[in-house]
Amino acid sequence: MNPKEPGRRRFLKSGAALAGLAVGTAATAKTAAADVPEERIDALHKHGERSHYVDSIRRGSINNPERRLPDEAKNFGLATPLQDSTGMITPASLHYIVSHGYEPPDIDPKEHRLLIHGMVDRPLVFSLEDLQRLPSVSRFYFIECHGNSTTGGLGGAARISPDATVQDTHGFTSCSHWTGVPLSLLLKEAGVKKGATWITAEGADANRHSKSIPIAKAWDDALVAYAQNGEPVRPEQGYPLRLVTPGWQGINNVKWLRRIELVDEPYMAMMEISRYPRLALDGKSRWFEFEMGPKSVITRPSGGQHLPTPGFYEISGLAWSGGGAIRRVEISTDGGANWKDAELQIPVANKAHTRFTAGWNWNGGEAMLQSRCTDDQGMVQPTMAEVAKLWGTDLDYFRKTTLIVSDLNAIQPWKVNRDGSVKNAIF
Amino acid sequence: MNPKEPGRRRFLKSGAALAGLAVGTAATAKTAAADVPEERIDALHKHGERSHYVDSIRRGSINNPERRLPDEAKNFGLATPLQDSTGMITPASLHYIVSHGYEPPDIDPKEHRLLIHGMVDRPLVFSLEDLQRLPSVSRFYFIECHGNSTTGGLGGAARISPDATVQDTHGFTSCSHWTGVPLSLLLKEAGVKKGATWITAEGADANRHSKSIPIAKAWDDALVAYAQNGEPVRPEQGYPLRLVTPGWQGINNVKWLRRIELVDEPYMAMMEISRYPRLALDGKSRWFEFEMGPKSVITRPSGGQHLPTPGFYEISGLAWSGGGAIRRVEISTDGGANWKDAELQIPVANKAHTRFTAGWNWNGGEAMLQSRCTDDQGMVQPTMAEVAKLWGTDLDYFRKTTLIVSDLNAIQPWKVNRDGSVKNAIF
Repeated sequence: MNPKEPGRRRFLKSGAALAGLAVGTAATAKTAAADVPEERIDALHKHGERSHYVDSIRRGSINNPERRLPDEAKNFGLATPLQDSTGMITPASLHYIVSHGYEPPDIDPKEHRLLIHGMVDRPLVFSLEDLQRLPSVSRFYFIECHGNSTTGGLGGAARISPDATVQDTHGFTSCSHWTGVPLSLLLKEAGVKKGATWITAEGADANRHSKSIPIAKAWDDALVAYAQNGEPVRPEQGYPLRLVTPGWQGINNVKWLRRIELVDEPYMAMMEISRYPRLALDGKSRWFEFEMGPKSVITRPSGGQHLPTPGFYEISGLAWSGGGAIRRVEISTDGGANWKDAELQIPVANKAHTRFTAGWNWNGGEAMLQSRCTDDQGMVQPTMAEVAKLWGTDLDYFRKTTLIVSDLNAIQPWKVNRDGSVKNAIF
Repeated sequence: MNPKEPGRRRFLKSGAALAGLAVGTAATAKTAAADVPEERIDALHKHGERSHYVDSIRRGSINNPERRLPDEAKNFGLATPLQDSTGMITPASLHYIVSHGYEPPDIDPKEHRLLIHGMVDRPLVFSLEDLQRLPSVSRFYFIECHGNSTTGGLGGAARISPDATVQDTHGFTSCSHWTGVPLSLLLKEAGVKKGATWITAEGADANRHSKSIPIAKAWDDALVAYAQNGEPVRPEQGYPLRLVTPGWQGINNVKWLRRIELVDEPYMAMMEISRYPRLALDGKSRWFEFEMGPKSVITRPSGGQHLPTPGFYEISGLAWSGGGAIRRVEISTDGGANWKDAELQIPVANKAHTRFTAGWNWNGGEAMLQSRCTDDQGMVQPTMAEVAKLWGTDLDYFRKTTLIVSDLNAIQPWKVNRDGSVKNAIF
C-alpha cells in the first residue's frame, strides 16, 4: 500500500496502543430487552431498523439547514451523507432527494397506472401488476442531480466553504440496484409511429413534473423501475414507478411515473425551460444536456472529519460516469505531484458508483488528498483549472454564479492539517 | 421468450384488457401531507421509510407463527420474504434472523473491542475506529442457515406443506454487500504461531456464541464486516462487527464479534456439538460441515401466489452456491421434461445470490415450475431423487426426521393449478 515500503505487510506499529492490551478489556455489551415493550420488539423483528447509535441523516447544505430551495416554498433538497458511505449502494433511506413538493404523493399501487400514448399504434395502460409480469432487468445505476458539486442551486456558497463536508459538496448523487422493465419493451408493445423522436415523461406528483427525453434513450437503456435495492421503490424516489435514465441528469429520472407520450419535439416543460438550461460565458443558453461527466470524490477522510493520530489510513471514495463504467481511479496525497492507482471494489458496473480504496501513511504533516477517475470511454476527470478553461479563466465565475454549472466535475481536493482536521480546499 | 413462437416480440395480446383504455383512467394520487405532523415529515426526510402500502415482513414458518424454536424459550427464527424479492440484495430490514437470544445485544460502538489472541506473536485489541482505518474490501455474499430448505429445525413440517411459501421453504438465506477488513490482514498483524490450525470466534451476545473455524478459511476470504448494504451492520446481523465466512453455514458468521482465538483444535462449543452435527442413515454423526451446496429456487411465481389470467409471465428466482459463482440456471415448466436457460441478472458474484429470469407463456393448464443451477465448479443442483440416493431411497426419511439435513439442496418444484393457484410440490 505504501510504495516507499514495498515489502511492508503490517499496518500497525509494534508497541502502538493497539498491541498487547489485557484480555479483560475486550467487549462489553448489555441486553436492552428488559424495558422494551413486546409489541415494539415484534415490530422490529418483522422489519428491522438500524442501531440507535447510528445517526447518519440526509440534510441540506451547511448554509441552508432548513434545506428549502430559495425560489419556491415547497422545494427542498436533502443530500446523502457520503462521509459515512461504505461500498457502492446507497441505503434507500438515505438516497438524496430534490423535490418540488414537500411531501411525496401517497399513491395506492393498486390504483396507479402507467399510460403510453401519443405517436403509437396502440395506446397502452399498465397497472403495477401488469408491469411485474413482463421481462425485467436488474442493474446498478447512480442518479445524480445535475447541480451536484456545483456552486449553483442546491449547495450554493457551501460548495466553496472550507467547512463543507462531502455531503455538502457531492451529496446529491446516490446509487441503487434498480429492477424494472426496459422502456424499449413497452414501446415495442405500443408500436412507435414513424416521426416520433422524443418522449415526454410525466409524474403523478401535484406539479405533474414533465421531462422531454430523446427517444434514443428509451431504445437504449431507460428503465421503468418498480424496485430499488431489493424492495419496492421508496416513496421519495417515486413509489411505485420511477423512470430511470442511466447516467443522465437527475431531472430525467421522473418519479411517480404515470405517463409517457411519444412526440416529435421536446415539450418545453416548466423545469426544462426555466431552471435547467445553462448559461455560458458568451451569454448563450444551452438547453437539453443529459449525460453526467466522469466524477470522483474521496469520502474518507473528507471535509469535517478528523484524523486522531499519524499512521496508516485507508483512503476511500466513489467514482462514477454517465458515459459508462469506471476504468481507473488515481489518488494523490501531495497536492497532485504524484499519483498512484487506487483499488476498485466489486462491482465495477456501467453508470454506477464504484468504490475505490487506497492505503496512505499520514506522517502528521499537511497533505492534500485528491482523486481522479477515468471512464471506459477514456474520459478523464478534469482539474479545476481545466474546467475553468472551458468557462474562461476567471475562477471568480464559480464563486459568484448562482447558475448551475452542470459539468463542474472537477477534481475535489481535501486539505489535511497538522492538527488532523480535514478541510474543503476547492479554492 | 417462447420457443414455440420464436419471432414473437409482443407480450400482450391485441385487444387484451391492457390495450386501448381511455386516457382519462391514468393514475390518480393524493397528497398525504395535510394531516402528518411536521416533525414526522422531518424525521422521514432525514431517514426515509418504505411506503405504508408495502407490507413484506420477516416471519416464522406457517406451522410456527410464533417463530420460537422448540427447545429454548428465547430461540427464534425469522425468514426473509423471498416471494417479494427483486434483484439480488436483501434489504437489511428483511435479512433473515436465527437467534439464540430474543433481543440483539445493545452495543455501544465506542466501547466495543475485537480481541485477537491465543497462538499469536502479539495479542491485539481493535476498536471499531481502528478497524475502519485498515484496508477494506466490499463484496456480495449470501449468508444461509444450514437448516434452510430442510425439514429439520426452522421450517419443520412447513417445508413439505402444500401451502408453504418460498419464505417457508427457502427464506433462511439473504444476500448483502458486506464491507470490512479481511481477517487474514488482522492475523498477519498479530503474527500466527506455527501449529495454529483453527480459530474460535466469539460473539458479545449473552450466550457468547462460539464457533470453531479452520484457519484456512481465515487466510482465504473471511471478513470482519462493519458495514452491510452501504450502512453499518444492523443490530440483528451483528452490529457493530460480524464475522462473514463466505459460502459457509450461517452459524460460522458470528454476530457481535468480540474475540478470535487462535488454537490448535476445534473448541467443541455448545452449538457445534449439540445441534449442528448431522446424523447419517448408518447412525454415524458427521461434525464440522461448512460449505453450502449449489441451490436455486423460483421466487415468482411461488407457493401461495396466484396467477390471475393465462398469458405471459416472467419466472424469476435466486441461485447461489457456497462453492463459487453461479454459471448457469435452467428452467422447466413441464415437470422436468424440457429445460431452457434462464437469463442471469447483474451482478453474478462469487458466493452471492444471483437473480435469474425467464419468460413463460402460461396456457391455463397445470404446470410444474422448477429451476436447476450449476456453479462455476461444475456442481449441479440435484433432484430430490438424487439427494435421496445419498440418504437411502426412503423419502419418508425426509418427512419424518427432525434432524437438519444440511445438504438438502434439491430442486424445488412449484405446481401451478388450473385455477392459477401455486402450491409447494416437494413431495
